[in-house]
Amino acid sequence: MNMTSTTAEDRLAKLGIRLPDAPSPFGAYVPAIQTGNLLFLSGMLATVGHTPAMVGVVGKDLDASAGQEAAHAAALNVLALTRKQLGSLNRVTQFVRLSVFVAATAEFTEHAKVADGASEFLRAVFGENTVPARVVVGVSSLPLGSPVELEVILEVK
Amino acid sequence: MNMTSTTAEDRLAKLGIRLPDAPSPFGAYVPAIQTGNLLFLSGMLATVGHTPAMVGVVGKDLDASAGQEAAHAAALNVLALTRKQLGSLNRVTQFVRLSVFVAATAEFTEHAKVADGASEFLRAVFGENTVPARVVVGVSSLPLGSPVELEVILEVK
Amino acid sequence: MNMTSTTAEDRLAKLGIRLPDAPSPFGAYVPAIQTGNLLFLSGMLATVGHTPAMVGVVGKDLDASAGQEAAHAAALNVLALTRKQLGSLNRVTQFVRLSVFVAATAEFTEHAKVADGASEFLRAVFGENTVPARVVVGVSSLPLGSPVELEVILEVK
Repeated sequence: MNMTSTTAEDRLAKLGIRLPDAPSPFGAYVPAIQTGNLLFLSGMLATVGHTPAMVGVVGKDLDASAGQEAAHAAALNVLALTRKQLGSLNRVTQFVRLSVFVAATAEFTEHAKVADGASEFLRAVFGENTVPARVVVGVSSLPLGSPVELEVILEVK
Repeated sequence: MNMTSTTAEDRLAKLGIRLPDAPSPFGAYVPAIQTGNLLFLSGMLATVGHTPAMVGVVGKDLDASAGQEAAHAAALNVLALTRKQLGSLNRVTQFVRLSVFVAATAEFTEHAKVADGASEFLRAVFGENTVPARVVVGVSSLPLGSPVELEVILEVK
Repeated sequence: MNMTSTTAEDRLAKLGIRLPDAPSPFGAYVPAIQTGNLLFLSGMLATVGHTPAMVGVVGKDLDASAGQEAAHAAALNVLALTRKQLGSLNRVTQFVRLSVFVAATAEFTEHAKVADGASEFLRAVFGENTVPARVVVGVSSLPLGSPVELEVILEVK
């Protein structure tokens, strides 16, 4: 096996990560929509199914490291949902854009560090050539009290 | 008339809803941009024209039910703008993604319920096969004090 | 030279504006991703490189005019990054959508005015026929304490 043949599913298996079930929608929407070769995912929270994995505002209830863990938990849901929609992570040709919403105080400044909890993990799975553009903002609150929500656009084959 | 021939315009008429005029821009931007077969709408607020239909922060000034009403008011503007841009709602082939920004306190958790005020209505108009992916976040404030802002991407023919 | 031959690079030169270096990423992401003829930029802050040009929350630390300046500073980074990615601003065929995140208090209402600091400048550079759809929201905080962050989707040739 050479480097070029290493796939996202290979890398995930090598990391020893077993994905959770993709969370079902919390309301009147669908998990993802494909238009052309773009797949838009619904917002993924730091949950296991519909149960919050973590709750709280970063900068008050949680520090940046805990925020990173929440971002990682949300990224697991991104992968679970992507595999469920596509059958395999290997159908992702480009990770186009990752938007990271962090429930954060007005004084918090380390949003990039929190977001790295998702994007470093996604890079480990999809590889250096599939790293997305990224937008990170601090918001007042997120559904269920989740510290992080991820919004994802993928290019698929 | 069979089910497959029911259109978004048919459903809207059956609901007895008369759309308001689409709000003109509040600044240096255009109401919508089409690229390929994707139509990106500018953010729609809970306004009638340039007048706020409701103002306030959900979780402090307004409860989740009032937030739902605000989401519905913003969704009326989404439909009004879409019809104005396309001539008819029937040119929408897929509702790709709906992002719901809710002006909410740090303690608020029922963002999904607020968002359903928009997406249940949009589902009633566009039908079960045209439900979008959805992203919902709580933000500190929105233009004009609107409790809700909707960001929309549509696939059109 | 007639009007139709005026390019974005021409207009920028006429405005006497020299662009800064595009900021390198602050974490595990890339500055921009192209898929088909759409270019998604990573979030651009009011920084010069990695140094904040301004910090603070609009409505508390800064007024709307200062927020406009921050939006203009972030827009300079949008142009710098776009030119770096494409070689020339003239490869932009449509400015599809501009999302403006303003770090703002719960009471702030003049988000549109702040956003105009970016979009009036971008209109001056790209011309009246290349004005984007726009989404503006107030958020609790942004990376590095930036008052404004811009999220951009461009159509390119």
